Amino acid sequence: MALSPFFNPKSVAVVGASREPRKFGHVILKNFIDSEFTGKAYPVNPKAEDILGLKSYPNLKEIPDELDLTIIAVPAPIVPSIIDECLLENVKAAVIISGGFRETGEKGEKLELEIKKKIEGSNLRIIGPNCIGVYDPANHVDTLFLPRYRLRRPKPGPIAFISQSGAFGSAVLDRAASQDIGISKFISIGNKIDVDEVDLLNYLAEDNLTKCITVYVESIERGRDFLKVASRVTDNKPLILLKGGVTKDGARAALSHTGSLAGSAKIYTGAFEQAGAIQAQTVDELFDYARALGYQPTIRGQTSVAIVTNGGGFGVISTDEASRLGLKLASFDPKTIEGLQEKLPDYAIVHNPLDLVGDADVDRYRLALNAVSSDPNVGVILVIVLLQTSFIESDVVDAITESHVTFGKPTVVCTIGGEFTQILVKMLEENHIPSYPTPERAINAINALIKYGKALEDKDKRKIV
Amino acid sequence: MALSPFFNPKSVAVVGASREPRKFGHVILKNFIDSEFTGKAYPVNPKAEDILGLKSYPNLKEIPDELDLTIIAVPAPIVPSIIDECLLENVKAAVIISGGFRETGEKGEKLELEIKKKIEGSNLRIIGPNCIGVYDPANHVDTLFLPRYRLRRPKPGPIAFISQSGAFGSAVLDRAASQDIGISKFISIGNKIDVDEVDLLNYLAEDNLTKCITVYVESIERGRDFLKVASRVTDNKPLILLKGGVTKDGARAALSHTGSLAGSAKIYTGAFEQAGAIQAQTVDELFDYARALGYQPTIRGQTSVAIVTNGGGFGVISTDEASRLGLKLASFDPKTIEGLQEKLPDYAIVHNPLDLVGDADVDRYRLALNAVSSDPNVGVILVIVLLQTSFIESDVVDAITESHVTFGKPTVVCTIGGEFTQILVKMLEENHIPSYPTPERAINAINALIKYGKALEDKDKRKIV
Repeated sequence: MALSPFFNPKSVAVVGASREPRKFGHVILKNFIDSEFTGKAYPVNPKAEDILGLKSYPNLKEIPDELDLTIIAVPAPIVPSIIDECLLENVKAAVIISGGFRETGEKGEKLELEIKKKIEGSNLRIIGPNCIGVYDPANHVDTLFLPRYRLRRPKPGPIAFISQSGAFGSAVLDRAASQDIGISKFISIGNKIDVDEVDLLNYLAEDNLTKCITVYVESIERGRDFLKVASRVTDNKPLILLKGGVTKDGARAALSHTGSLAGSAKIYTGAFEQAGAIQAQTVDELFDYARALGYQPTIRGQTSVAIVTNGGGFGVISTDEASRLGLKLASFDPKTIEGLQEKLPDYAIVHNPLDLVGDADVDRYRLALNAVSSDPNVGVILVIVLLQTSFIESDVVDAITESHVTFGKPTVVCTIGGEFTQILVKMLEENHIPSYPTPERAINAINALIKYGKALEDKDKRKIV
Repeated sequence: MALSPFFNPKSVAVVGASREPRKFGHVILKNFIDSEFTGKAYPVNPKAEDILGLKSYPNLKEIPDELDLTIIAVPAPIVPSIIDECLLENVKAAVIISGGFRETGEKGEKLELEIKKKIEGSNLRIIGPNCIGVYDPANHVDTLFLPRYRLRRPKPGPIAFISQSGAFGSAVLDRAASQDIGISKFISIGNKIDVDEVDLLNYLAEDNLTKCITVYVESIERGRDFLKVASRVTDNKPLILLKGGVTKDGARAALSHTGSLAGSAKIYTGAFEQAGAIQAQTVDELFDYARALGYQPTIRGQTSVAIVTNGGGFGVISTDEASRLGLKLASFDPKTIEGLQEKLPDYAIVHNPLDLVGDADVDRYRLALNAVSSDPNVGVILVIVLLQTSFIESDVVDAITESHVTFGKPTVVCTIGGEFTQILVKMLEENHIPSYPTPERAINAINALIKYGKALEDKDKRKIV
């Protein structure tokens, strides 16, 4: 596909590569050298003989190789001439990192138009300008010019992330890394003079490594195309959108930020829903939903929620939140209740939320999870496990994972606490069980799973008709 | 005051103290021995000669000291006889840790009534049963029976926390500790056969170490008294309430959990508002608000918000959220704009949200913060600082703190990321600048500051009339 050179290039030129460690071109070249990138990387800088141990070339023409990808990190006024070189050398893809375009006023806008004209009718595709580019951990493509001690790189995983804002993207990647959340591909689209969210959705729809797509946008120029591709994407994988600039003031801020005409909140919300996409209302929701939808099976048919807890208060709060969102709490089958009453201590509360009480140990969790998982009245399970008591050991992670794998029911965890809890959260994440620090966020994530299941059902219905 | 023996006892007996490290009585006794508790601690256990190096007493009578506080961790059926001993020995306060009361059915309920009758007309005050008791880091009182490697203890600080749910309380304390959030007093009230939230609010209203009070309750039995004391509290310090069981299903769950009749959401919301209390809708909000209200000055009069950012996207999202909540974004004074335009690079966006752009360094932040802080059109400041770029160094914490201290305007930070970010978050927390991982949560915290300011203004008005 036309966009694959961005993600799987055999040869990369870094224009503006530099010997100075703080320069963007230096950091980007180093990313390719330090990683297990299997292609060739070529520094381009007429003023240097070699950079980071590699021979430096004065221009693209001198490079003795066909170029899949060129990364451009030179001042804006020079960029058009580099694009000329790219076109002459039949480069397939370019990422323009440089700022100084439309976002700075008329002069920059003209530069953008100049570049746009140049590539018309050519095969060259451009991401940017004014962006941080691409991060693809599977293929070791990393154009992020931010140092690793500041922006830790997340590991490979199922979630793709498209961001119109580079700073937003880098902040979220950094947090994802620290929480062991896996990323399939990250793309910062910046001023999107060529490749935009529509192109990328088309590409990611077919990307096998991507199980779930998240998007932050302030503007969508090709509305009709966007809805078309969004509908196609959501046939196969969930799509979660956070739209910036949904209020009047926010739209004004978006106009200053990315020069975007943000458009009415209602129109977007309606259109997203029609396309089967899930709209996140907050930054937390964007990745809360993605971790549920990226890891857990879809909920279809039976959507009733079972809550299993060792803290009654969190059970109460979860129930409140489920009610607020209109979710149905499962009524356990009489057989389930009977079985639980037989085996649980008599002070446990054997209905939904199922309160195993503060002295619950892992055996009690195992028993309860197996019982509710095999109950036909249960569609999805929220496991609340507060780890402050010494009754619970870390193998509760195994108990949760085993019942999830055995019965195949979507499972989401709520746990909150300090260092010990954080270790278990990472263990759960590794087992693809998403975990949330509050009952409300966990229930919200379940709601997203149910919403996506409904969207799929609606599509099936339409197809039958 | 009648409740001070719970928090500042000169002598403590631990009934049910044990040599066995996993027993609650062992952990609690150890808490007093290992800490800098300046009073005397006496283990009570007729079967042991000495426990943890202290002589063990067969009963309270044999202890050669007046007892301020007795902590009871023996099986429920024995508890009434210990209460008899407490009454005979004129013990001032007792915390009944033991479960096995009302929450387990009729038998337990009878035990509660028996104890209630015994203490009628006496000076003995009781917290519990079925609770985890008291944590007062300033006085080194710690009845939490949960091991420190599971439940890390938070440092002393301005926030008091009353929780009807022990597990909720312990989970939140653990997280508070890991985030360096300071606690003045924590009280788990359990089945509250004697001391309840009303008594504690009365006490905490006068507690100089407490600047802000947070409460999780599922039921409030003495509604009228509660509103009276809440109104008195909020004259001097903010009160933040999270009410569990606000939906029909949630209320049913609360009934099972703490035997509480939870009551209608609307009635509570209205009553809380009338009393000047802030209602948190989620667990996150409870402490998000507390950290703003506990550390930052009240916002009165000028409530317009200034946003300073190095990431445009987060500026847009903050603006959206402020709009949604009906907050006013400040229009900067022409002088402010002029001054900023003179000194900032021309690609910075010099209106509100003030976008310092991705290459902003600490000097640029200092300049911007001083400018907006001295602008009379600005009442409160949201500083968004994304630390993934290497332009920003950690002394941005000093810049933020200095402008806050110099100009005295309430300041809240939004920053998100991995390890490096977390270090700066803790530095900010130490300087009493609350920080939030998303723009929405930061703006929400500002909204709580504004709400409390309005509640104070309304009270002033009522007093003038």
